[in-house]
Amino acid sequence: MSETMSMSSVARLATRDADFDQRLDALLDWEGVSDRAVQQRVEDILHQVKQRGDAAVVEATNRFDRLSVSSMQELCLSQEQLETAYHALPADQREALADAAERIRRYHEHQKPSSWQYTEDDGTVLGQQVTPLDRAGIYVPGGKASYPSSVLMNAIPAHVAGVREIVMVVPTPDGILNDMVLAAAYLAGVDHVFTIGGAQAVAAMAYGTESVPRVDKIVGPGNIYVATAKRAVFGQVGIDMIAGPSEILVICDGQTHPDWIAMDLFSQAEHDEDAQAILVSWDEEHLNAVEEAIERLMPTLERHEIVRASMRKRGALIQCENQQEALALINRIAPEHLELSVSDPDAWLPEIRHAGAIFMGRYTAEALGDYCAGPNHVLPTSGTARFSSPLGVYDFQKRSSIIHCSADGASTLGEVASVLARGESLTAHARSAEYRLKR
Amino acid sequence: MSETMSMSSVARLATRDADFDQRLDALLDWEGVSDRAVQQRVEDILHQVKQRGDAAVVEATNRFDRLSVSSMQELCLSQEQLETAYHALPADQREALADAAERIRRYHEHQKPSSWQYTEDDGTVLGQQVTPLDRAGIYVPGGKASYPSSVLMNAIPAHVAGVREIVMVVPTPDGILNDMVLAAAYLAGVDHVFTIGGAQAVAAMAYGTESVPRVDKIVGPGNIYVATAKRAVFGQVGIDMIAGPSEILVICDGQTHPDWIAMDLFSQAEHDEDAQAILVSWDEEHLNAVEEAIERLMPTLERHEIVRASMRKRGALIQCENQQEALALINRIAPEHLELSVSDPDAWLPEIRHAGAIFMGRYTAEALGDYCAGPNHVLPTSGTARFSSPLGVYDFQKRSSIIHCSADGASTLGEVASVLARGESLTAHARSAEYRLKR
Repeated sequence: MSETMSMSSVARLATRDADFDQRLDALLDWEGVSDRAVQQRVEDILHQVKQRGDAAVVEATNRFDRLSVSSMQELCLSQEQLETAYHALPADQREALADAAERIRRYHEHQKPSSWQYTEDDGTVLGQQVTPLDRAGIYVPGGKASYPSSVLMNAIPAHVAGVREIVMVVPTPDGILNDMVLAAAYLAGVDHVFTIGGAQAVAAMAYGTESVPRVDKIVGPGNIYVATAKRAVFGQVGIDMIAGPSEILVICDGQTHPDWIAMDLFSQAEHDEDAQAILVSWDEEHLNAVEEAIERLMPTLERHEIVRASMRKRGALIQCENQQEALALINRIAPEHLELSVSDPDAWLPEIRHAGAIFMGRYTAEALGDYCAGPNHVLPTSGTARFSSPLGVYDFQKRSSIIHCSADGASTLGEVASVLARGESLTAHARSAEYRLKR
Repeated sequence: MSETMSMSSVARLATRDADFDQRLDALLDWEGVSDRAVQQRVEDILHQVKQRGDAAVVEATNRFDRLSVSSMQELCLSQEQLETAYHALPADQREALADAAERIRRYHEHQKPSSWQYTEDDGTVLGQQVTPLDRAGIYVPGGKASYPSSVLMNAIPAHVAGVREIVMVVPTPDGILNDMVLAAAYLAGVDHVFTIGGAQAVAAMAYGTESVPRVDKIVGPGNIYVATAKRAVFGQVGIDMIAGPSEILVICDGQTHPDWIAMDLFSQAEHDEDAQAILVSWDEEHLNAVEEAIERLMPTLERHEIVRASMRKRGALIQCENQQEALALINRIAPEHLELSVSDPDAWLPEIRHAGAIFMGRYTAEALGDYCAGPNHVLPTSGTARFSSPLGVYDFQKRSSIIHCSADGASTLGEVASVLARGESLTAHARSAEYRLKR
């Protein structure tokens, strides 16, 4: 065993180790902070696009994506191009994409909130009206990380929410278009596609240009330039979370086939070298078996170099003492993806306070959720499940409070408001309320 | 009339004017951008607090709030102090505060979402679990703008959401405590109060120090240092909107007493010189009457200097042609506060796409909503109602997706996931799904 350990591809930790807390903190530590140079470059691009619109977007795109277009017209895709891409797909891909889109749509329909009102005894009506955004902007990464499933996951909730117009940007470095991405945009009902990316695309959607309509919210992941630009325009437009690397936490009771668990960990690790895959079990033999499976299966993977780097840098097999410790680890880590590969996952659910998505039981591989189960695969990373939610219909809607006082209600409430307003020395507030008192 | 115009305290605009669009855009323009000097100072403070914890907070507090304390113990308030402050209030203030708290609590109870699940034909279960944040941090401005009503509006939704621990910070420049603020904290169930403010308070809550517990989300308004700090820590913790100056848009059909309308405008303008109060009507005589009321009532206001500055700088009386134009203006401005001082406000509601809070009918002065009607007074400003909502229970909760595949479901979904994963060249994803296929 000691020989296997020494050449191991993944760290072994145990909660009983004296240095466990420090080692876990070090493993989890991740900060996507952009340095001053990145900030400066992003600010420059934002400023240029704000001032000069399309011209600045074209310049930046030519430069960063190695293109040589002369106008934004060459960076727009028509609905016909999207439709053609869809119909040109091999039948199995087209059907799989349509199946996935339909399931995602069905799940997200359950998220639609309703407007509500109630009437008080004196006739005063209070409530909340829910309305969709006018226009949503979806950022889709280009190149190798350009995923059609992400187009579905970002655009369908916007569509279900009732957004009037969905704008999508996807950079095409060296001019390479991904047909599945265009097909997904067609399926998901995207209205406009621009083949631009980076901070220039974020700026175009945030401020609007001659060609790119200004949106109300920008969603979707991107590199450090995109993340920095989103943070900077936040307030001008809404943004979703700023995404970190993807992660999975698998809890196993030792009864799932070790190969399944190993492959579930790999499916996270293959995303990129910063991705994080962690297994927790109180069954030491199971951890040994999974470690053996990792060593054995790793060389068979197409993306074994990325997986090896990710597992070595950020992966871990953690032995805990019991279920209670496993639960504490879940809530401490607040994982993006949580796989409960245990016999009675329902019993665990009420104790789980923080997790982006919970994959329950031995059959629910994370990959099913990534593509087609229905729930969104855009999830809070790096512990942000402590305070944020999967992307959803609610991200594309907002609420307005409704207050309709009866004459009686205004009089009763006016007395209270008057006292409090005078207590805050806001006497125009008080007098405005006092005008409505019944004398 | 022309003489009145020339000495007028508020701009008159008409939608039929050739330069209307430019003038309105200029009026609405507001950008709370922090310059590089502010950014640098905030980054320094964040860095210091992250590295040195309490010591850095104490230093910054002594410096910026002109105190001379030697430890964080002197910057903590006990529950006893809060309770004492509550009982020491004059009876009318204590009762008004309790009334307001109760009404705010009742309204926000309606915002609580439920967890949900549904089972598909093959036994697969999909759903969403709603959970509260563990710990929320509330920033309450100090000095003159320290408002007890804001404590209620920020803390009660957190409490209703089920947040385990509510931390509040409120700076006390020159050591001056506001008893009504402490009383409100007692009423709203705040767990810890620290008398700190600025970027140092934001940093303390975002990173945690020896004394200040790390929170999961920071809400509440503040000055440019607070706003810049919140933007910087976003991602480490959740934040609410970055607030701009307060604004009101009043629509009047000409049938409300001009004095009422003038005072409603003043109640917004008295907040600060950047506050914005706009009246829109298609009744020119009414606009004239309100202008006259403004001139007549302005000198009677306690805060007339602030009101005069704000009305002159950012106020406007706008004449439009008809209701349809008024509606278009509402949706273009996306006001924080919208007062529909018209005979049938319900008829307007379905057409209103963007507004923070809608005050319906002649009796619903904005001041009633600011204090005690029930809905939140923390609202999206500067047109951000296009994409954001009043502060609410939903700001203190988050959701986890639930996916529980049956063996049959995993097999059906696995086929789809396999095709899509291979289309994205993510073969470990594909193989993880394929293990669960029924062969």
